Amino acid sequence: MFSPVIQSLIAEKAGSFIIPASRIAFVEDENPLYHAFLVLTKMKYSKIPVLDKEQKVVGLISLSMITDTMLTPDNIVIEPLSDLKVKDVMQTKFETINFARTNLETQLHLLVDNPFIPVVNDNNIFQGLLTRREWIKAFNYVTHSIEEKYNITKKTLQKENPIT
Amino acid sequence: MFSPVIQSLIAEKAGSFIIPASRIAFVEDENPLYHAFLVLTKMKYSKIPVLDKEQKVVGLISLSMITDTMLTPDNIVIEPLSDLKVKDVMQTKFETINFARTNLETQLHLLVDNPFIPVVNDNNIFQGLLTRREWIKAFNYVTHSIEEKYNITKKTLQKENPIT
Repeated sequence: MFSPVIQSLIAEKAGSFIIPASRIAFVEDENPLYHAFLVLTKMKYSKIPVLDKEQKVVGLISLSMITDTMLTPDNIVIEPLSDLKVKDVMQTKFETINFARTNLETQLHLLVDNPFIPVVNDNNIFQGLLTRREWIKAFNYVTHSIEEKYNITKKTLQKENPIT
Repeated sequence: MFSPVIQSLIAEKAGSFIIPASRIAFVEDENPLYHAFLVLTKMKYSKIPVLDKEQKVVGLISLSMITDTMLTPDNIVIEPLSDLKVKDVMQTKFETINFARTNLETQLHLLVDNPFIPVVNDNNIFQGLLTRREWIKAFNYVTHSIEEKYNITKKTLQKENPIT
């Protein structure tokens, strides 16, 4: 069970928890690959969301997905950057979070294997990102505030084999 | 203050906490840049440590540091990959952790702004990585075990202005 006490401490911080879409770099699925190459090189993010024209999240793209197309058996070539589009190389299998439906426990579980998770609304429109960094900050807050606000005492051990 | 209760819960998990050097991809400072380009493309890590011949951590390198050298005002070129070495583009300013000296509170603070931190011994020899992912797993453990093992009750509010 997810600790109700920690849940209530984290709830105090909610709102500061998601990075809003307006602050996130993204590319569009129809962009040529060199555009994503430039954005990822200059923004220094390791992976960013891919949106379609309606602002729906349709994929994720990283520099390594792009540079992988540049490898030939005996050389590194730049032609794929203009020959291919973002949609040709992006990752299309990924998790999303809908804040109205995804509880904290599930969010934390998803972040074990994903550095960030796109947040969408009921129409799959991009709302922002949930990131490990924001959860590390939340954990930081919990570790510093829990014993200010709560008394915590160790439970006495239950006997495993009661006398018969 | 870092909660002693959470500290003791995390201490139960210590050991599983650092990813050992033997499991980490790295490059050497004298490697040509195309070697790091290949390693980062194929391993799909966003950033990896750079070691010298004595296994000391001397830098960090990401794909975007490499692809940035490939940008000219009007083109993308591959020559820098063979003309430059890892040490020419790596990041040389970075934090390290020495487990004998760095407490949990400091580790958690460092992870707010760094997805991972190299762990070194007293001779600066690479020991492994501390990652946000491992801390997310630790937080997961804390949220699920704290109320099994401890009784937690809200502190009563102290009156700020005692009756005079």
